[in-house]
Amino acid sequence: MADSAVQRLDEVLLVAESLFAQRGYEATSVRDIAEALGLQAGSLYAHIESKDDLLHQILSRAAERFFLATKPIVESDLVPVEKLRRLMLAHVQVITSDLNAAAVYSTEWRHLSEPRRGEFAARRDEYEGMVRCMVRDCIREGTFGDVDEKFATLLILSSMNWIYQWYKDDGPMTPEDIARKLTDMLFKGLRRPVG
Amino acid sequence: MADSAVQRLDEVLLVAESLFAQRGYEATSVRDIAEALGLQAGSLYAHIESKDDLLHQILSRAAERFFLATKPIVESDLVPVEKLRRLMLAHVQVITSDLNAAAVYSTEWRHLSEPRRGEFAARRDEYEGMVRCMVRDCIREGTFGDVDEKFATLLILSSMNWIYQWYKDDGPMTPEDIARKLTDMLFKGLRRPVG
Repeated sequence: MADSAVQRLDEVLLVAESLFAQRGYEATSVRDIAEALGLQAGSLYAHIESKDDLLHQILSRAAERFFLATKPIVESDLVPVEKLRRLMLAHVQVITSDLNAAAVYSTEWRHLSEPRRGEFAARRDEYEGMVRCMVRDCIREGTFGDVDEKFATLLILSSMNWIYQWYKDDGPMTPEDIARKLTDMLFKGLRRPVG
Repeated sequence: MADSAVQRLDEVLLVAESLFAQRGYEATSVRDIAEALGLQAGSLYAHIESKDDLLHQILSRAAERFFLATKPIVESDLVPVEKLRRLMLAHVQVITSDLNAAAVYSTEWRHLSEPRRGEFAARRDEYEGMVRCMVRDCIREGTFGDVDEKFATLLILSSMNWIYQWYKDDGPMTPEDIARKLTDMLFKGLRRPVG
């Protein structure tokens, strides 16, 4: 693909992402996306195959951003709890860097057609499995107590995945502040330390 | 309203709730709801004023269920941390008793028309304020450490509000199990207790 075509596709994806995040996938037509881009629906089909294809590309790119940001951490020699802490920071950074993508990733993936939906779910499961593995290592190593590994993993992921609902670029907290508060609260708990 | 009309309205709301939860509010038409009920769209308007009216009624009922379930706890003489623990149990019970309502409550309220949207947001803020007040009492009383009160409140609420995404009626965990695990993890933290 020529550079300008890549650039145009990026623009199409950004606009579609924003409409899917605001109105929802089902309520957004290819015509709406074309209009927002100042194109005829027919011209838009030069860039995409279908609306499903757009959703698929948005979700694949979002998934890749999560994997790309966390891969060096997973492969590092850090102790498990430090890996988890850094993974959480990277995850929060990915979410806050593109709130529309985070919204689509959280709620619109269920509208994907098969087999894409199944593939996306598998990729999500893979990511969840990676976090779960870190949680398990933290338990084995004795940093974490004897907690329900799966439930703790879901709690960690969900505590990060709701951030797109309230985060503001110009708000008082940076992604780093948010990640630090989250890991502090989740690891140490809300209770006052005893002794 | 006669009993049969009330019963019919309940039925309409349940069907609308289920469609809004699955497809989203914007993608569901009054005709879809009528069809799912085996009615003509015209006959459905004997029960409702508009689609917005349906969403409003669904959200108002959902909000009332949260307030109704937690009111006796708020007004009780329990110590703050016990109040918060019981509120979380009641909240989880409300969510798991109607997953479609929880889904609509979490994601579709933004489609309400004004001034209903503003009123709904105010009611949500009121509920959040109630939880925040309990968190503040836990900090003041010294049960909780010196944590960010607002952030802790959002973490508690979000940790409960994602449950509708994975909870299964026939799954291994009861709402009571879920609430106990959540309060344990959030209050004590994941770290192994020292000493």
